[in-house]
Order: sequence, then structure tokens, then C-alpha cells
Amino acid sequence: MIHLESVYHRMGQNWSYAYDETAIHIRLRTKRDDVSQVDLICGDKYGWDRTHSVYSMERLSSDNLFDYWQAAVQPPHRRLAYYFALHNEGNTIYFLEKGFLEQPPEVIYEGLFDFPILSPEDVHRPPAWVKDAVFYQIFPERFANGDPSNDPEGVLEWGGTPSPTNFFGGDLQGVLEHLDYLCTLGINAIYFNPLFTATTNHKYDTADYLRIDPHFGTNELLKELVDACHAKGIRVLLDGVFNHCGHTFPPFMDVLENGRASRYADWFHVKEWPPGVNGGIPTYDTFAFEPIMPKFNTANPEVKAYLLKVGRYWIEEIGVDGWRLDVANEVSHQFWRDFRTMVKQINPDAYLVGEIMHDSLPWLLGDQFDAVMNYQLTNMLLNFFARGQTDAGQFSRSVGALLANYPQQITEASFNLMDSHDTVRFLTHCGGDTRRLKLAFLFLMTFQGTPCIYYGDEIGMDGEYDPHNRKCMEWDPMKQNQDLLEYYRWAIQLRKSNSAFRSSAIKFMEHPEHPALLVYERRDEHHRFLVIMNNSEFPMDAQVSALKSESVWINQELQQPADIGERGELHLPAYGYVILREA
Amino acid sequence: MIHLESVYHRMGQNWSYAYDETAIHIRLRTKRDDVSQVDLICGDKYGWDRTHSVYSMERLSSDNLFDYWQAAVQPPHRRLAYYFALHNEGNTIYFLEKGFLEQPPEVIYEGLFDFPILSPEDVHRPPAWVKDAVFYQIFPERFANGDPSNDPEGVLEWGGTPSPTNFFGGDLQGVLEHLDYLCTLGINAIYFNPLFTATTNHKYDTADYLRIDPHFGTNELLKELVDACHAKGIRVLLDGVFNHCGHTFPPFMDVLENGRASRYADWFHVKEWPPGVNGGIPTYDTFAFEPIMPKFNTANPEVKAYLLKVGRYWIEEIGVDGWRLDVANEVSHQFWRDFRTMVKQINPDAYLVGEIMHDSLPWLLGDQFDAVMNYQLTNMLLNFFARGQTDAGQFSRSVGALLANYPQQITEASFNLMDSHDTVRFLTHCGGDTRRLKLAFLFLMTFQGTPCIYYGDEIGMDGEYDPHNRKCMEWDPMKQNQDLLEYYRWAIQLRKSNSAFRSSAIKFMEHPEHPALLVYERRDEHHRFLVIMNNSEFPMDAQVSALKSESVWINQELQQPADIGERGELHLPAYGYVILREA
Repeated sequence: MIHLESVYHRMGQNWSYAYDETAIHIRLRTKRDDVSQVDLICGDKYGWDRTHSVYSMERLSSDNLFDYWQAAVQPPHRRLAYYFALHNEGNTIYFLEKGFLEQPPEVIYEGLFDFPILSPEDVHRPPAWVKDAVFYQIFPERFANGDPSNDPEGVLEWGGTPSPTNFFGGDLQGVLEHLDYLCTLGINAIYFNPLFTATTNHKYDTADYLRIDPHFGTNELLKELVDACHAKGIRVLLDGVFNHCGHTFPPFMDVLENGRASRYADWFHVKEWPPGVNGGIPTYDTFAFEPIMPKFNTANPEVKAYLLKVGRYWIEEIGVDGWRLDVANEVSHQFWRDFRTMVKQINPDAYLVGEIMHDSLPWLLGDQFDAVMNYQLTNMLLNFFARGQTDAGQFSRSVGALLANYPQQITEASFNLMDSHDTVRFLTHCGGDTRRLKLAFLFLMTFQGTPCIYYGDEIGMDGEYDPHNRKCMEWDPMKQNQDLLEYYRWAIQLRKSNSAFRSSAIKFMEHPEHPALLVYERRDEHHRFLVIMNNSEFPMDAQVSALKSESVWINQELQQPADIGERGELHLPAYGYVILREA
Repeated sequence: MIHLESVYHRMGQNWSYAYDETAIHIRLRTKRDDVSQVDLICGDKYGWDRTHSVYSMERLSSDNLFDYWQAAVQPPHRRLAYYFALHNEGNTIYFLEKGFLEQPPEVIYEGLFDFPILSPEDVHRPPAWVKDAVFYQIFPERFANGDPSNDPEGVLEWGGTPSPTNFFGGDLQGVLEHLDYLCTLGINAIYFNPLFTATTNHKYDTADYLRIDPHFGTNELLKELVDACHAKGIRVLLDGVFNHCGHTFPPFMDVLENGRASRYADWFHVKEWPPGVNGGIPTYDTFAFEPIMPKFNTANPEVKAYLLKVGRYWIEEIGVDGWRLDVANEVSHQFWRDFRTMVKQINPDAYLVGEIMHDSLPWLLGDQFDAVMNYQLTNMLLNFFARGQTDAGQFSRSVGALLANYPQQITEASFNLMDSHDTVRFLTHCGGDTRRLKLAFLFLMTFQGTPCIYYGDEIGMDGEYDPHNRKCMEWDPMKQNQDLLEYYRWAIQLRKSNSAFRSSAIKFMEHPEHPALLVYERRDEHHRFLVIMNNSEFPMDAQVSALKSESVWINQELQQPADIGERGELHLPAYGYVILREA
């Protein structure tokens, strides 16, 4: 008996979608290990008899409870009516939109699932360059001080202890002067935390959306930096804070001064006049309950027009390559649709990344963002690599669920990070053990999506939550962890020189007898790799089932045949790994 | 043990949504009869400790496999973080975004489900009038011939046998002259099949989008008709065919004449020049494979601008109250978003109904349609009432699944029909048995959504598929089924005078020992009704569990106490029904 309650498919979302202008992906969920084969029977509803055919679906991934199946179909008239046949030990059931059948449907037109049309306008195509990018996140006040003349008053000496309110003088000139460092590291995209004029050191309380903070430099200097980056093949992403402004943003100051009479009174959500704070709760909507961050009323067409103008200016005039959008899920969908339309009209290759820490599908259906900051993956990396709270099987299955939860092009363009200015540093979660950090980074470098390195991780910087995760970048080579830096350079090159690690085909191979053994296959038309990691503090003699085959395996790091026993035995040191390429 | 594979919730869609500007609805699915109670634990993620509370979820509906639970929450700051506690015979499990837990979560911020903000701009509010409307669908060529002077050449005598190509001279003047009939029937909204200039009798091959077909009348006459309707409290919905035009649409004719050189060459999807038909398949995209219906290329901004101009004209200049949109799911989502924005800017109360026969959620999330033609319900009505292929339990559960599949405001504004110009007439499916038709119509009149009557159903017209479902309206009272007409009038009044029948609270009560016995409760703040039907050809002595209570029940039709036994016994004739109101 096939387990009906587990079977899931619904037209749309991650279950049926246009992957590109010709292909439709169809997915189905079944109970884990319940079904041995799934067929997709599909055709054109207006000409079923001459068009229908059967596709055997492939197992895309699995999680604790379910298997996920996928097929890609290219219907000539861009229409697809379909149903599923689920097979299991001689049992077969048929699954249609109208329900389950024990026999194939007799009347085809009625009750099938229907993907009515693949409209080219609706295809969600994140920018192609994103798949091949390696990002580096810069918190500008703390990366490098290249121009002491623009330091804030009371600036502290570089390398001092950060507090929520102090300043160290980092600026754009500092970034310009260290571009070679970034090139040598191997990254090819930068995500800047906010650069616009604001009062705090993090600049999330924007005062002037059209001006670089004078302590960081000028608009002209950013343009120079962007041009310099582009000349080196580096793309630049800015941080846009459009959910709220800062309390020194002139329209909000006008509201504070003139109350209801302000011509900006409707730019915000003031619930009680005059705006103030009552028992710790602002009487106007803010980010969280933070009085210095009043929330915009984006339903006001003036506000929307203003923010769209800002979004346009930095792309059109300064040439940046996209936006990371702060608190993106607390701004309306309507606003983001208009924002996307505007941005993509100027530059279809601009990358739009929302800051969303939760399930983000409603923002990733093609009309809003290209990606979100993939904190869901971050948590999986933390739980397995840093904290050892999950075993390799649990980790594989949580990643498997993530892959099944989003359309493939979303997985391919996802903004994958280990940590950020908003989290504890990954190394700190690892208790300072760089071996754990290295494994996690290797995973990121061999996984689809676009990885992002938080500045300083590559030289062993650590730190708890804000302000400790925002220390000054260490530029003294003697104080940098050179071994780690070398490893980062190597792993980035590994990714950049092998497209298989950027492809969307990942296959986890569980070895329940070795809970710490993570094994996955990465392949594309050029190569097939196995990545094998021992995520434990004990050396391991593992028996890896995939290595029992006739294949000859090359150790990718050593570029020589790997030392593998006849039954796939392999020795891995504590927190060791090996990357094997099929010869 | 609670059945984990059956548990489903995902942020968005029908699972969590803004019902209005203050309330968020949260839903959860569990295995049928597996869970006795579900609690929703929720609060503001930025102030959990002072805001969180527990809601007991109500069972919204059930289907064959699952129960569906719902809670409505009005968070003061419009943000909602949440998780679920599922209880069953002393077992409790907790369900979070990150998975299942056996104990309540310790760290609240991490891994909860998150409805990040209720944005007023994103709230999907179908027009309020729709809930209270009763529609009447008019196929203009066949309703009434009020002006013989505009009859097409070769017009046939009214009442002749319809063919796919013949004409009988129905027109707008005919509708004007029968408005009193419609008022007496009790309807308060008309849906017109296409009225614009075209060559066929159904007019789905538009030649001129800005001109009423001369055989129907003039733009001025439609304006007069719309004004007359509005004066009587009747709203008017037009049929917009924006997926494709007709072969006599001048831009398409220009393409046929000038080929690639036509300035309209990019208005269509021509795949091989010159456009033609090859082995029965047009070399340009069409509706289905129909050469006389070339599909528009709505990715072309000129095409989009043209069609938006059309959409605007009839609302702004003629004053119609909305659009029924033909083949709506084969036009891009992008197009419909712009179409909705344009329409709602002119008239926020305009009603947008898509013709979609399948699961339609992607079009009903607030950015596209207010409703679709609810053919999914139609099929349920047919299977139970007309064909007797399902029993009352199966019918209840299929309706239960439908209710769970869409946000509540969608259910409330759904365009519910028994038949149309595209289906066999309902009475024909009933084998001519008006008793079955009456029960189905009574269901429609006591169910949420906006019901629509296909012209002539109310007087007993029958007919197979096109052309037989498009017979001339019978105006001879002697040939009309007066008993049926009287019944329709009564049932419409029943609905109009009792808001409980238009509310969204419906509760089915299954009686497995009586497969033909349909019982459901309808209630609102004013009244509580039970509707009880015997959907079989045999009289029934039923024992209705809900009638065992202390309540006194009034027979709504007779306005006198109902004849009910002590243990809830009730006699129902074959295809009989009774509507009981709690005194």
C-alpha cells in the first residue's frame, strides 16, 4: 500500500514551475522509502492523444520523512496537463488533481493537474553571473581606514575593542587600497553593509539615501571604487534599508517638528500624535520597537516614488550590481514588485537579495527577489559542522528538504553564508576550532548557490554577537591565520575551476554506521566528484559505498590516485576530508 | 503517536494570510481524526515575552484524508511569530518551521514560523458586494431579440435548433426589455458573454475590442443598459477575451497580409513565416489549436498597453462593474498584475473573475483575480446531486478540501456556478429530474460565494454541450416550468434575506448510516440554520444527530415548528429537504 497522506503536489510554487523559457519542472513528494518509481504522464490538454508521453521522475532529494521527485519537460506548445503514477512492489496508484485513482484515468481532460502555459514573461531567471560568484561581505566601518582625514570625531585606534557606539574610521578608500587582497583571495563580488549617511556605526538608520556617509567618502569615490571593482571583475552589492529610515531622516524630523501638519505626516505609520514612546513602545511603527528607526508607509505613493528613485540612482548613476534589501519581509510585496520592475528595466543583470531568515518562497516566485540570505542553510551548517548537534544523515536530510522547498533556479542563485554582522562568527560557534570551520567552508564551496564570506573569517577572526562580530579587520600578516587564509584561497579556486561544484546536482549518500561521515556527489557534464568529510574529532576508517565501484578515483588536492581499499575503505583523520574525482 | 507525515503548514498561500487589515488567519492540516486539539502559540518576535498567547484552533473542515484547523489572530503590531501544539490522547508534539519537537521550544526566536508583517497594501479584499450578489449569465445571441432591425443576415426564427454557426438575433435591447423579469427572479448581477464585434455567434473571436457587435447594439445602448441595471441595483460583468483575438482583428489581418514586415508582427507568437496551418497545427500560437484565435504576445508592451486601454475603457466610460476573463490561466501573471492595478485604480469595487477550471491559487493571492469560475465546485455538485456518483460524505469532504485550499475571502467571493455556455446543462446531467436540480440549487443558495444562474436554468431549459446548451431563451410562460421558476425565486429570496447563508461558516455533519443524507449547519451572529437534504429517490426516515439537542427548530419554509422526533428523527420524501432555524 502506498502511503497516501504523504503524497503532495500542488500546481505552482516549488511543485511546478518554469525553469527557463522552454522547461517546466514538476515535483512530487512521497513518504521516504515508500515508493520505488514515479512516472509523470503528461501532454497537451488540447491534443492529448498525439502529444502525451511518460517520464520517469528522478529522486531530487530526501528528508527525514519524505522523498522528493523531479522531472523536467519541454512541451512544444508550452502547455502541460499531467498526472502521476506511483509504483511500489507491484502496487500502482495514480495521483491527479482530483485525487487518487486505482486505475489510470479514463477521461483525460477532467481532473488532471494543469500547468496552463509557460509564459516567457513569468520565467524567473536570476542573473547568470550569480552562480559563479564568490561574495565577500564588508562592514565598512571596520574593514580598512584608507583616509584618516574623514574619520569621525573621537575615532579610536584601529584594532580596539568594538562597542555598539564607537568608531574606528573604516572607509571606502580603505577598500580601494585592499582590492588586491580581495583579488588574491579569489572573490569576485562584494556585499557592502550600508554606506549612506547615518548616525550609527552600522548605518542602518539612514539620514540621507542619496549620499555616501562623509566618514566613508563621497558618491564620486564609490563610483571610482565600483569602476575599479568592475575592472577587476568584481561586482558590487549595496545594502538598501527601505523598511525604515533613521530618526535624522529629514522627513521624519519634519514630522517630529510639525506633527500632523507636516507634509510628511503620511510617510510613516503614526498611531498616536504626537509621535513618541510610551512604556518602551513607540506610538509610530518602527523596525522592531526601535524608536530611531521609523517604518516607512510604502502605501503612500510619494514614499514609494522616493524609494524607487533611490533604488534607481545607485544602479543607474553609480553602476552598482544590485541590492541586498534589509528587513525585506516586513515591506509589502507590492512595493517589491514595483522595485524589481524598476531595477530590472535598468539592469536585467542586477541581483536582488532579500534579508529573510525564514522560509521565503512567497518572495522568490519571480516577481520580487532573486535570492534571500540563506540563513536556513546557515543554521544547518552551524548545527552539523560547528556544534555537532546533528549527524551527517540529519544534515543531508535538512539540506535535502531545503532543495525541495525552492525552485531549482532559486537554489542556484541563493545567497549562502556562514555568518554575518548579525550573527555570532562561525569560528566562535566552533569554539575556535578552525578544522570545523574549514569543513563548513569546504561544503559551502562545493555547494550550489553563491557563497559569501564575512570579512575576516578567512584569517580566523572570531566574535560573539554585535559588537564583537564587528571587530576591525586584522591587516598584520603575523596576526592573521595564514594557514586558514591559504585554505580559503585554495577552496575558492577549487570552486572556480570546477563547474561541477556550482551545478545543481548534489546527491547525498548516507552511511548510518558512520554518523560523522558526510559523503556527497557533485557532477556536471565535465566531471564527477565525491566529497567525503569526517566531521568528528576522531580519525575514521570509513567504508564508502560509492567507492566500491570499478571507477578510478583521483585525489583532487594531490592530483594523484586516491588510496582506497577494495571495499571502498578510506582513512580520514579527525575533521579530515578528501575530494575525489572520477578518472 | 501523532501522524507526522500528515501535518502540513507553510507560511503563505492558504496556510497563513491576511484576511483583512487587522486579522491574520493561520491554518494547519493533520491526519483525519488523528488530533483532538491544536493550539496556536504566537506573539511578536521582537517582544515575545510580553505579547505571546495561546489560541485554540477550530476545525475548519475535513476531507477524506485530513482535518484542517484555523485560528484568526489580530496582532497589535501586525507581526506574528508562531508554532503549533498538537494534542492527542495525552500525546503532544510541537510543530515549528524547523520541524517537530517533543518539548516546547526553549529558544523562541529561532525556528518558529513567521508571518513577518500584515501589510495593508497586500491585503486581498474582493469587493464587498460580491458576497451578497446573485448572478445571472446571459449568452447575448440567445437571450432575447429586442431589435429585429439589427439582426444578422440569415437570422433564424427564435426558438429554432441552435448550430455552432447559426444566429437568432438576441441583442442588448432584448435584455433591456427583460430587466423586470430578472428583478422578479431576484438576481442582482449579470455576467454577459462577449459583446464586442466578432464573426461567430459566441463572439470569442474578437474583431473590435472597443465596439459592441452591431448585431447586439451600440456602445451607447450598452451604457443605457448598464445605467438601467444600476438603477435597479444590478451590477454588470463583461467577458474579456485577452488571451487571443479573432482572425479578423485588424492587426492580425495586417500580419497575414504583410508578414514579417507588418508593424504588428510582434503582437503574436508567429513561429514560422508566413503564418499558416501545417498538418492541423497553426504555425503561430493560438487558443488551443484554433487558427481563428491567434494568441496575443502580451510580453510586447504595445500589446499590453492596447489591452489595458480596452480594459479601462469599458469600466471608465461605460461603467461596467468588472470583468470575467476568458482563458485566464494562459495569459501571463505579469499581465494580470498590471491589469488588476489598472482596474482597481479606476474602480476598487470592480470584480475580476478568471476563467480557470483547475486549482487556481496562484491567481488568487491578491495581485491578480478576485475569483475564478468555480468549476471545481461545479464538478462536486454534478457528482453528488446530478449523477449520484458520490455520497453525502464524499461530497462534504470534497467541499471541505475546497474550503481549506483557499483563503477565506476567496471562498466568500468565489464565482459558483452549476453550468455555463461551456458545459452540459445541469438539468441534462440530472436526466431531466428537476428534483435533483432543485437540491443542487438549494445548496448553491445556502453556500458561501456568489452564485450564478445560467440563463434559462430557472425555467427548466436543458441541453448537451455547445450548441445545445445555447438554445434560445423560452419566453412563453406556458412553456416555462413555472414550478421551477417559483422555486428559484423562493431560494434566491431565502439567501438574500438570511445572511447566515452567505457567511463563511459551514459545518457538515456526516451520517454514514444514511449515504444520501446531506446535513450542514449555516450560522452567523443572527441565526443558526440546519439544511437537511435527502439526495435519493427513496423517502427517508433519518435520525439527525444535531436534532437530538434541546433546541427548538422552526421549519423555515413553513414558518412553524418542525416535526422532529425525540431522538432527532425526521421524515424526508425522495429528493426532499428541510431548512430548520434554531428558535
